[in-house]
Amino acid sequence: MKIAFQGVPGAYSELASRGLFGAGAKTVACETFENVFEAVDGKQTDRGVLPIENSLAGSIHQNYDLLLEHRLHVVGETYLRVEHALLALPGTKFSDIREVRSHPQALAQCSHFFAKHRNIKPVVWFDTAGAARSLLEEKPRGVAALASEYAGRLYGLKALKRGVQNEAGNFTRFLAIARTPLSPLKQRGKHPFKTSIAFGAKNEAGSLFRILGVFAARKIDLHKIESRPNPASPFEYRFYLDFAGGAGEPKVKAALKELLALTHDLRILGSYPRAVLPKAAAKRASRKS
Amino acid sequence: MKIAFQGVPGAYSELASRGLFGAGAKTVACETFENVFEAVDGKQTDRGVLPIENSLAGSIHQNYDLLLEHRLHVVGETYLRVEHALLALPGTKFSDIREVRSHPQALAQCSHFFAKHRNIKPVVWFDTAGAARSLLEEKPRGVAALASEYAGRLYGLKALKRGVQNEAGNFTRFLAIARTPLSPLKQRGKHPFKTSIAFGAKNEAGSLFRILGVFAARKIDLHKIESRPNPASPFEYRFYLDFAGGAGEPKVKAALKELLALTHDLRILGSYPRAVLPKAAAKRASRKS
Repeated sequence: MKIAFQGVPGAYSELASRGLFGAGAKTVACETFENVFEAVDGKQTDRGVLPIENSLAGSIHQNYDLLLEHRLHVVGETYLRVEHALLALPGTKFSDIREVRSHPQALAQCSHFFAKHRNIKPVVWFDTAGAARSLLEEKPRGVAALASEYAGRLYGLKALKRGVQNEAGNFTRFLAIARTPLSPLKQRGKHPFKTSIAFGAKNEAGSLFRILGVFAARKIDLHKIESRPNPASPFEYRFYLDFAGGAGEPKVKAALKELLALTHDLRILGSYPRAVLPKAAAKRASRKS
Repeated sequence: MKIAFQGVPGAYSELASRGLFGAGAKTVACETFENVFEAVDGKQTDRGVLPIENSLAGSIHQNYDLLLEHRLHVVGETYLRVEHALLALPGTKFSDIREVRSHPQALAQCSHFFAKHRNIKPVVWFDTAGAARSLLEEKPRGVAALASEYAGRLYGLKALKRGVQNEAGNFTRFLAIARTPLSPLKQRGKHPFKTSIAFGAKNEAGSLFRILGVFAARKIDLHKIESRPNPASPFEYRFYLDFAGGAGEPKVKAALKELLALTHDLRILGSYPRAVLPKAAAKRASRKS
């Protein structure tokens, strides 16, 4: 199995790919999200893995746009806890560190660390894993990187500190995409399925209420709802909806059929086994928040 | 009027502050979003201005979290078109440019430019305006920055190219916050108001349907809805809702009263005049997409 992901080896997306498809999967690093879709479309890889939302930074609309542009199918999801480790070349002591390289968002997520250690300078880098790789390539003295421990192992670095980020409860949700949807037969297994759809609706009072009535009438649980303004047409909204059940189940089929009359450009992005947040991680997040 | 914003002078947030409060307002640069809240809380400034959602990158949940932690009120909103200009020191020609500094997100938003000009190297910087300022401070040769034209004017730079970003339809929505809410009297003016609320609800089939029924029954238009998973408690959701009308209007008051029984931790973030996207900008976005 070949999996396309965006970033350099050691990126959080590659870690999510391994979580979804096992350590034996062959991962292929792509420069952009668009390249991930092209790799799957063009059969260079079997699957693609994309971040779709983060618990602090929100939904990545750009990847929803790409899902709508390309005719690929969501076949899986996973949650990954964003946990930055302070990585350095072996032999480096914490007291040696004068500079820490990482992506600006990761540096911002670790602002409490920098506030506490005023003698350590944050230095911006293109990505977290790239910052880790630069240590192996350049072997600079007194320099560390903030990235996953996974990136650290890949580039032979030592974790001087773990969980450096301010917030314990920072999760990213990743989707797996493929050229063919999961078979409706698989949707009848023991593991509960979920379905992601996107649609347009008129901006008029009660339109969303009527749409949700379709699900309420069938006691279908909703897992996510999000409206997205359309800058090109302020009186139209696009919605993203995730709900319980697979598109092959009779009550979901009936709901989707009824939805056709209430929406436009309805698109089933995919039905796939529902992932749950690891309990220990959720508990830790709850304690800290 | 003193306005706190996050970033260095010339940041898009400062540009949004000027759009909301005029060129005469005194803007105060803050290091973090939290510092913006602290500046308003601690009466160092009269208002704060925060990005809350971007048309490509989604809602900034972190700023919703800060709105819920602090007891401040939303008193205004504005949309800003994200338009990156290629800025250089006066006398620099486009053919001289070998390196372009900016925030990684801005560099990614201009990937088509770098694909076309392979001899120009993108260099990461902490923020767009900081990249512009670095040209004035260091006066490096053959180096440009990607930031707003506003940042360019501030640091005496020339715009060699305008609208360098791939997508014309990239907008950020900003909110203005203050210690006291807008008076209900002001909510009866000619300009239509909108109200932002946040609440928690049980994750059970039909709960959101019943909540939206409160608005549908009163023909209140919804402008935004978003669910946010709670990593600490996967069976609870938090919702953000924006709808038409001010919290002082009788039908809005009645709706909010009914909502108390259907939700928990209901919080009125503020009622404020509704901003519209500039038409010309929306048209251009529509042509390109």
